[in-house]
Amino acid sequence: MKMLEETLKNIRQPDDAAMKSALERQNQLTKPRGSLGVLESLSIQIAGIHRKPLPAIKNRLIITMAADHGVAAEKVSLYPQEVTRQMVLNFVNGGAAINVLGRLIDARLLVVDMGVKGGFPPTDGLVCKMIDFGTANFFNGPAMTRTQAIDCLQSGIEVLNSEFEKGLDIVAVGEMGIGNSTSASAVVSAITGRSPQFVTGKGTGIDDEQLHHKISVIQHALMINKPDKNDAIDVLSKVGGFEIGGMAGVMLAAAARSIPVVLDGFISGAAALIAYTLNPQVKDYLIASHLSTEHGHRVCLDHIGLQPLIDLNLRLGEGTGAALGIFICQAAVDLLAQMATFTQAGVSDIEHRK
Amino acid sequence: MKMLEETLKNIRQPDDAAMKSALERQNQLTKPRGSLGVLESLSIQIAGIHRKPLPAIKNRLIITMAADHGVAAEKVSLYPQEVTRQMVLNFVNGGAAINVLGRLIDARLLVVDMGVKGGFPPTDGLVCKMIDFGTANFFNGPAMTRTQAIDCLQSGIEVLNSEFEKGLDIVAVGEMGIGNSTSASAVVSAITGRSPQFVTGKGTGIDDEQLHHKISVIQHALMINKPDKNDAIDVLSKVGGFEIGGMAGVMLAAAARSIPVVLDGFISGAAALIAYTLNPQVKDYLIASHLSTEHGHRVCLDHIGLQPLIDLNLRLGEGTGAALGIFICQAAVDLLAQMATFTQAGVSDIEHRK
Repeated sequence: MKMLEETLKNIRQPDDAAMKSALERQNQLTKPRGSLGVLESLSIQIAGIHRKPLPAIKNRLIITMAADHGVAAEKVSLYPQEVTRQMVLNFVNGGAAINVLGRLIDARLLVVDMGVKGGFPPTDGLVCKMIDFGTANFFNGPAMTRTQAIDCLQSGIEVLNSEFEKGLDIVAVGEMGIGNSTSASAVVSAITGRSPQFVTGKGTGIDDEQLHHKISVIQHALMINKPDKNDAIDVLSKVGGFEIGGMAGVMLAAAARSIPVVLDGFISGAAALIAYTLNPQVKDYLIASHLSTEHGHRVCLDHIGLQPLIDLNLRLGEGTGAALGIFICQAAVDLLAQMATFTQAGVSDIEHRK
Repeated sequence: MKMLEETLKNIRQPDDAAMKSALERQNQLTKPRGSLGVLESLSIQIAGIHRKPLPAIKNRLIITMAADHGVAAEKVSLYPQEVTRQMVLNFVNGGAAINVLGRLIDARLLVVDMGVKGGFPPTDGLVCKMIDFGTANFFNGPAMTRTQAIDCLQSGIEVLNSEFEKGLDIVAVGEMGIGNSTSASAVVSAITGRSPQFVTGKGTGIDDEQLHHKISVIQHALMINKPDKNDAIDVLSKVGGFEIGGMAGVMLAAAARSIPVVLDGFISGAAALIAYTLNPQVKDYLIASHLSTEHGHRVCLDHIGLQPLIDLNLRLGEGTGAALGIFICQAAVDLLAQMATFTQAGVSDIEHRK
């Protein structure tokens, strides 16, 4: 608990002076003011986060956290539970979507076992932070104990802190876990107060009847577990997942270390809600990469006050949207740092600004 | 004229068999079907364009075409006309936004002088296809002769054909030309039949009064020049620009060579309208990178039937949005080519698809 408390305490406001300098520089670069739109505001946000007028992104990291979910027993997913474990091996072997995108943006990929059924032998590229072999089925009671919920958060903090030592300028979070869109919907419903109907989607691609069933499972789980919306740790323990808690921990630790966090889709959005409920200041460190096709994702982002960068109808997870988001952040800071000013390039500015 | 006619004739339908193979492969990759959204459809489109089931993007090119516009004399832009020339030198010296993004996506940048006032001495990295030192002011009569309009198109074709010889898998088009959003608005109004009010925006950032003036200039120009909407060469000669014609030529030649063309914003959208009017089949080769803040851009894209990939409130031009678009295309084809299939990775698929 001490590590979590210290991390929460260490999250500062982004640096105003750095943001002001970055804005001033944007206005001197050889382009009409504001013409790079979101790329300008993003560069200013990252300047504030890095506490530097000219932030640089040289060390890119994707953290993909995996765990199993007891609620998978309620048949809320198209895929059998063993797919969580198989996909972790796919990550380790370099064959998944997140591997391809990680290579493309030159990011290192860290796969974290937060609690996959069966576990893994020691494996290169896989960090074990296993809490248990999957959560309990929250249809019948809490997904995990309060102590386990705190352990998830602190494991995420440990992962980020240890990666920070290796050099880190930006981090993306992603996940894998059969059944985790059910857990995410329950978390989002609990914290935002929106109904399960409103925040639950088709996950890996279930049909209308299966969706109806998934919603009723979440309704029942919320009724019997009664998560306290003002106590994020309670919500996480009642209806969360180990990887959701782990990602929330990564976000908090990154914010405390002045590192921007690029969110992926719906599941990482639910984790962001946990982190935001624990300390709303984390918001300034979060960058929403994309808008998922899952309904509840917009609800998450609106609750925190985030605008997604892109909308490409993605719904895979793993960190795939976040990897594209890192590229956009890279473009933003490279433009800020590398473009010539009007004076440097000998380009005439408009009259009244000279 | 012969080169243009041959190019128009050589534009085929994309290859159906390659698209079908790409779709089949997408459905075997280790992810829920359709979960990569637009990245999946984009990979299939590029497979069709390349006529290969597994397209690869190894040679990326950005063509940025610059020219001056006689209509700048009507004070339709915030910036003095000399900025066109100064910005071309900025491109050549590597200090502009497009240089930064070109380096980021590892694309070569070709800057083409289609008719900048004053011209340039022979300069590395700058290709001279100068038609004239800027167009005539279309407020008073045609911007150029019909012969010059054909020359623009053929110059664009020559540029693309010569780059094709060096190896080329994808090309982005962009532009620079003070006054060219006025020309683009006139082209879009002429071809789509939408009013100048509806398709004219604030370009580099003029105020409401200046916008009103810009619209009245376009209304007058369309009235006195009477461009024929069914004759793209007539539209180009009456109210177009040399770089707009050049970009249209690049698009047609790329389509004829089975190379995907990534559009930038509003000005390249107007060029796409010219190309599309000359041969609607070009549409299948066009990828709209982003939605510009210029109103008329949506009108362009709707007329052709294109959906923009991203919307980041960009309005710079140069090819900046298109450079981001190339990255997204790269992600799409890399995912298609490099992801493991369910069988390869030993991941369980859903029951009824086994």
